[in-house]
Amino acid sequence: MMSFTKEETIKLLGRIEDLALISEQEDGLTRLFLTKEHRLAAEKVAGWMTEAGMDSHIDAVGNVVGRYEGSQPGLPCLMLGSHLDSVRNAGKFDGPLGVLAPLACIEKIHSSGHQLPFAIEILGFGDEEGVRFPSVLMGSRAVAGTFNYDVLELTDKEEISVGQAMRDFGLDLSKIGTAAYKSDDVLAYVEFHIEQGPVLESEELPVGVVSAINGQNRFVVEILGIPGHAGTVPMNLRRDALSAAAECILVIEKICNDDTELVGTVGSITAKPGIGNAIAGNVEFNIDIRGPDDAKRLSAIDEIKYLMGDVCKRRDLLIDMKMTFESDSCPCAPFLMDQLESALISHDLPVRRLPSGAGHDGMAMIDLTNIAMLFLRCEKGISHNPAESVTLEDVRIGVSVLKEFIENFKPA
Amino acid sequence: MMSFTKEETIKLLGRIEDLALISEQEDGLTRLFLTKEHRLAAEKVAGWMTEAGMDSHIDAVGNVVGRYEGSQPGLPCLMLGSHLDSVRNAGKFDGPLGVLAPLACIEKIHSSGHQLPFAIEILGFGDEEGVRFPSVLMGSRAVAGTFNYDVLELTDKEEISVGQAMRDFGLDLSKIGTAAYKSDDVLAYVEFHIEQGPVLESEELPVGVVSAINGQNRFVVEILGIPGHAGTVPMNLRRDALSAAAECILVIEKICNDDTELVGTVGSITAKPGIGNAIAGNVEFNIDIRGPDDAKRLSAIDEIKYLMGDVCKRRDLLIDMKMTFESDSCPCAPFLMDQLESALISHDLPVRRLPSGAGHDGMAMIDLTNIAMLFLRCEKGISHNPAESVTLEDVRIGVSVLKEFIENFKPA
Repeated sequence: MMSFTKEETIKLLGRIEDLALISEQEDGLTRLFLTKEHRLAAEKVAGWMTEAGMDSHIDAVGNVVGRYEGSQPGLPCLMLGSHLDSVRNAGKFDGPLGVLAPLACIEKIHSSGHQLPFAIEILGFGDEEGVRFPSVLMGSRAVAGTFNYDVLELTDKEEISVGQAMRDFGLDLSKIGTAAYKSDDVLAYVEFHIEQGPVLESEELPVGVVSAINGQNRFVVEILGIPGHAGTVPMNLRRDALSAAAECILVIEKICNDDTELVGTVGSITAKPGIGNAIAGNVEFNIDIRGPDDAKRLSAIDEIKYLMGDVCKRRDLLIDMKMTFESDSCPCAPFLMDQLESALISHDLPVRRLPSGAGHDGMAMIDLTNIAMLFLRCEKGISHNPAESVTLEDVRIGVSVLKEFIENFKPA
Repeated sequence: MMSFTKEETIKLLGRIEDLALISEQEDGLTRLFLTKEHRLAAEKVAGWMTEAGMDSHIDAVGNVVGRYEGSQPGLPCLMLGSHLDSVRNAGKFDGPLGVLAPLACIEKIHSSGHQLPFAIEILGFGDEEGVRFPSVLMGSRAVAGTFNYDVLELTDKEEISVGQAMRDFGLDLSKIGTAAYKSDDVLAYVEFHIEQGPVLESEELPVGVVSAINGQNRFVVEILGIPGHAGTVPMNLRRDALSAAAECILVIEKICNDDTELVGTVGSITAKPGIGNAIAGNVEFNIDIRGPDDAKRLSAIDEIKYLMGDVCKRRDLLIDMKMTFESDSCPCAPFLMDQLESALISHDLPVRRLPSGAGHDGMAMIDLTNIAMLFLRCEKGISHNPAESVTLEDVRIGVSVLKEFIENFKPA
């Protein structure tokens, strides 16, 4: 077991910094799917892959792909990776860490002359954030063979379609199918990513093993009451939509508090007419509910729906709850979690499994192969923000654990 | 006792319709202080006053004033009135009813040859709504002798100051003081107004006697939590400002529910960052609290403040509550309420006292003289809206009660 040195870790962090300079904004990081910044970043990573002894290319949907052969050419691969696109005004680690850390592992394995009984491929996906177009995971879905051709017509703010953007990027739409892998050629997909949450920090752990990418539902709720003058309508004659919404928000919180793994959030709310001296006649809010266990999540949603209906019935208001998004939980494969945990234990690190509340490319890759994720502690759980931060020592530990995992990887 | 006939009531309603045509918008009613529509309306009312046998003029701040002498010239007056300005896209009755109904009473009294042992003055105030300039009650304050000369510098959206608007209206700023009355010359101020609330309708009463114009406080509350990813932050590590705000909204509702006369409203709320997949780190909302009893209102506010502080302490959040407005309750004079109720009883109407949740010119006039108000039922309590509506029969009853009150009025 050869851990990464401080110097090797600094080199990795230097590349992450270099990549962060490829941005459409001068004073921060914004790198969207199929833009010229995306191409520059993919080409830079492809160059590093070649330096590390890998074959590299940009695939038919803009993902950068590097392959490192095992003890003989053409073996099935362990796939590692993450995404190169970012949100607007992003942090530097969300995505690039999961591409450049395995690259650093390959470099170190390659220079040690260690031959592996499987190939390794590293993927830098082009569209995990879904910021430019109203779709997500286009890159990893193409790799998983589940690319939805309907998305080609979706447009960005400038009315440029995905198809047009792909052509402008230099891609050939008729070749999209070539990005897909056969499942026999892939042994597993493992992603290293910052946690984007505060759990590891609160428990003073540098890394953790993801148990599942949470299933999620999103709803838009509208409550219809009767608007009125804040001074002239007595309390007992009110049909106040905002008071009802307040009760609903607390119902959601309570139901999710009752389960240690569920999270439920109301993050946006609009009251109309929305002035201080008028009773709200109409309130709209969003619900976001996630959890690693689909059955528990769906049962919590049923309970929330029932209790919110009850609140509005008691208050003589109308309520409408529309689902706008649903995704099932993506459980990580037990054999991969076990092997990640063995790597943790060999580094004398405590083992902690935690669900991922955020979405990741694994949600697409699970249709192709078994998935797993290793989470890295990040400061205050902040992500999607320039303040996103990790420590040198945590990265050193994380990338060392990842290398340990790769070197000892055994297919299912 | 001579009640109004249906035909006489139709004439009154016709004048209200005529006045509603004087508007800066073609398809609805908007008549702001010191505009040319204000002048046209004041002149039209002055003309009707003259027709009714009154002396009329437009005073030094744009109020229209009509005087009807009693059994001998120069007697102290019973003052009746309301306002001629409106909100934007207003109803027709809010204000004009309280100017034109007493005018109809004078007409009827005048034509009957009945001489009264006091003078009557009718005032059509210019600025009750406070829509054009960031001030209110400029007209009635000038009459009450409490005009605040600082407001002359306040400007409207077009950067026109009150002073400039007064000059443009044809007024002489050095004469503002002449609008004020001596309290010896005024016996009382009584205003007839639509309720602008649903109480009379819910109790099937055409009219009610106002007990007080409610005291009021307004606050802006800001709750500071910690924003976060809706998926990645477990419930127990959240500092959710919107959940806390929800608890606060219910605290306000509960405290006001516990008192039959208090009303408390949160009508506007803003959560930041305000997106469905982010925990709100910052929530701002407004509180509007009103009640006829100052001590009870202030004690309720103290309790709300304490309980909201408690909510935020328990949730480890910061809360800031800034008062943006305060007005004391303006109690109606018992001798005037009694006389209004005698008029109700003589029309075989049930007696109902109710506080006024909305503000009125009486809030300024109380500094000059005793005040009282008679409320008229309006459909669904809707006001400040083109849907504002009253029935012919209710107006007939209301104006008959008002005339009965005037004819039997006895000073304190």
